[in-house]
Amino acid sequence: MEKIQGGVTAAKGFLAAGVEARIKYRDRKDMALVYSREPAVSAGVFTTNVVKAAPVKWDRMLVKEQEYARAVVLNSGIANACTGAAGMAANEKLAKATAEALGIEKEQVLTASTGVIGMQLPEEKFCAGAKALAKALSDTIEAGKMAAEAIMTTDTISKECAVRFSVGGKTAVIGGMAKGSGMIHPNMATMLSVVTTDAAISKELLQKALEADVKKSFNRISVDRDTSTNDTLLVLANGLAGNACITEDNEDYHSFCRALHMVTETLAKMMAGDGEGATKLLTAEVRNAATEEEAQILSKSVITSNLVKTAVYGSDANWGRILCALGYSGVDFDPEKVDLWIESAAGRLQLVENGMATDYSEETATEILSQKEVTVTADMKQGEAGAVAWGCDLTYEYVKINGDYRS
Amino acid sequence: MEKIQGGVTAAKGFLAAGVEARIKYRDRKDMALVYSREPAVSAGVFTTNVVKAAPVKWDRMLVKEQEYARAVVLNSGIANACTGAAGMAANEKLAKATAEALGIEKEQVLTASTGVIGMQLPEEKFCAGAKALAKALSDTIEAGKMAAEAIMTTDTISKECAVRFSVGGKTAVIGGMAKGSGMIHPNMATMLSVVTTDAAISKELLQKALEADVKKSFNRISVDRDTSTNDTLLVLANGLAGNACITEDNEDYHSFCRALHMVTETLAKMMAGDGEGATKLLTAEVRNAATEEEAQILSKSVITSNLVKTAVYGSDANWGRILCALGYSGVDFDPEKVDLWIESAAGRLQLVENGMATDYSEETATEILSQKEVTVTADMKQGEAGAVAWGCDLTYEYVKINGDYRS
Repeated sequence: MEKIQGGVTAAKGFLAAGVEARIKYRDRKDMALVYSREPAVSAGVFTTNVVKAAPVKWDRMLVKEQEYARAVVLNSGIANACTGAAGMAANEKLAKATAEALGIEKEQVLTASTGVIGMQLPEEKFCAGAKALAKALSDTIEAGKMAAEAIMTTDTISKECAVRFSVGGKTAVIGGMAKGSGMIHPNMATMLSVVTTDAAISKELLQKALEADVKKSFNRISVDRDTSTNDTLLVLANGLAGNACITEDNEDYHSFCRALHMVTETLAKMMAGDGEGATKLLTAEVRNAATEEEAQILSKSVITSNLVKTAVYGSDANWGRILCALGYSGVDFDPEKVDLWIESAAGRLQLVENGMATDYSEETATEILSQKEVTVTADMKQGEAGAVAWGCDLTYEYVKINGDYRS
Repeated sequence: MEKIQGGVTAAKGFLAAGVEARIKYRDRKDMALVYSREPAVSAGVFTTNVVKAAPVKWDRMLVKEQEYARAVVLNSGIANACTGAAGMAANEKLAKATAEALGIEKEQVLTASTGVIGMQLPEEKFCAGAKALAKALSDTIEAGKMAAEAIMTTDTISKECAVRFSVGGKTAVIGGMAKGSGMIHPNMATMLSVVTTDAAISKELLQKALEADVKKSFNRISVDRDTSTNDTLLVLANGLAGNACITEDNEDYHSFCRALHMVTETLAKMMAGDGEGATKLLTAEVRNAATEEEAQILSKSVITSNLVKTAVYGSDANWGRILCALGYSGVDFDPEKVDLWIESAAGRLQLVENGMATDYSEETATEILSQKEVTVTADMKQGEAGAVAWGCDLTYEYVKINGDYRS
């Protein structure tokens, strides 16, 4: 298993495009299309927010009812959430316009939107956009990158990842793209992500693999604790790798899951590190918790604490805030057993032993915390379970971006 | 029932003082004392954080085991949390030094600390501080204010409130002080608050009244979702008002509860409006929820959303974020029934009707949101229960304060 260049076009038989459709932005790509030459089985996980965007409702229905999908059309700028019946109708028109441009049925077209909540999608623009996308489709790495760029909102970098792996004696690829920077606190999936693979796998096992995977990838990140109305993660598998179709929980399935996880974890970490206004990727590792669920709750409590996030921004080894965040997580433990470390490219340092400060150097601590990627490790000494979660620091820039996002 | 001037010294027989003890700060008051001439029954609620500061452990024990208390000694600058056995010993010494200065037993002295986690209290300084406090005790309004000032950390204003009311044919007073600006997300009580009353009430009913009250006062506020290690709310009742002691759930008890609530709600709102870096008090009112518990969860979800908080800071009527925060709260409802309003001294405006935008004026919305106190109202149309929660906006200043709090 190895990482390779590219994203959604890395696997055989997948094409993509990104164009400027002027949905809301004036001077950047804002519509993307991912297309599979062959019918692909689809799986998806979606936001748990009670308020669900129109494309989320559409995709949930299609992923459940349709055996195959052929395309995913995405737009940035407008989220098509809280738009009522008009929003559902606009979403269906978008699927239909895309289907017509591709010569397929609209029930084979999944949709995803991201941007401002409450605005309606402009019909004339998305119809023109759909046509332009179909014309621009290509299987090159560049085409995948154009698609990844077209779904960005406040993201500062486009997010792609691809992995080559062996399965059933064949070489297969899983590649994906994602966007997400604010309103990131996935609870089933995250903002928008499309993963494609040429591995052959049954629809049932694809959904099973995806649901297991998100618990350890996208559901482990948070930028601001705000779970979006549009969270969507879709996986399309078209079988062009030629492996015997994976239909049971065997070694092939595990190979597939490992490769899928390499893609999703990479994309999830890129998203956390590119959180709105973030200057640092913050990783919280919890060791020796009583259960894995508790380890997960503890690690997420650390990365979601505004006080931990601002301290990391200020490179301040204010470990009391970390212990405090563990303490209010809802998990019971003995605070007088906890050890804390910080680690980065600049070194590793123990701040706390059995709940109290070690005799550490503040200077060294600040140096470690000044790096772009910082890891906090907590040893709970309660059991043998562990978990990792990813977040980012909280900065002036986050306030600036969100104090005036709509204008 | 009417509000009157003053705080912890407003009720008969209570004295207070605030002095500069240089516990950590160099140029401001940092130790406070509240003293009752007569033995007072005590009640307390404390942080639910697993990590509990030494004074929290001490007070929990005393409130439970001792019928009467005489004094509360408080300090700012150092929280005496995560300080192990040395911290517990220092806390007991603080109680003992205060008791000796007052000529009472150390088991009659409650303690409370706020400030940096992980540092030890300096013994020589707090012993000198305790003596100075005992000498400075006075029953004047000014003395109460000195005490309220001495417990401030990043607070920008001291927080006091007093209410005069009738009970059992007598006139009684409840007065209190509080501090709290960051790490505010009380879950049983809040950072530090001391309430005194001359009403006569049994210890059992005082605790009952307090526990019921915090659910609708201090537990309804949040600055940053971080539940502190030191949250402490203490009430002392010395009976000097001369009313027949309240020993059952009768009309007198209800008069007492109403007066107590006027004090605690006022202090809680002052705390939310003075949140670290805050420029605005944000009130979220939820109407017609299915149950009161759901109304409470929904209202707290709105005031704790970083995205709602930054939008309020930017006076941006980004109502999608409000609906989104209601949606991920964990409460089930029909998004297409929700109405949303904003309101302030500048007027009242409906932004959303049945889950979709009204044709409101952005200009008017911005004007309303530009005021110092802003209320968001959500009508859920699911039932008949309501709740109110208080928070504040999220600003550059919050990041600044917490990016470098310790230095």
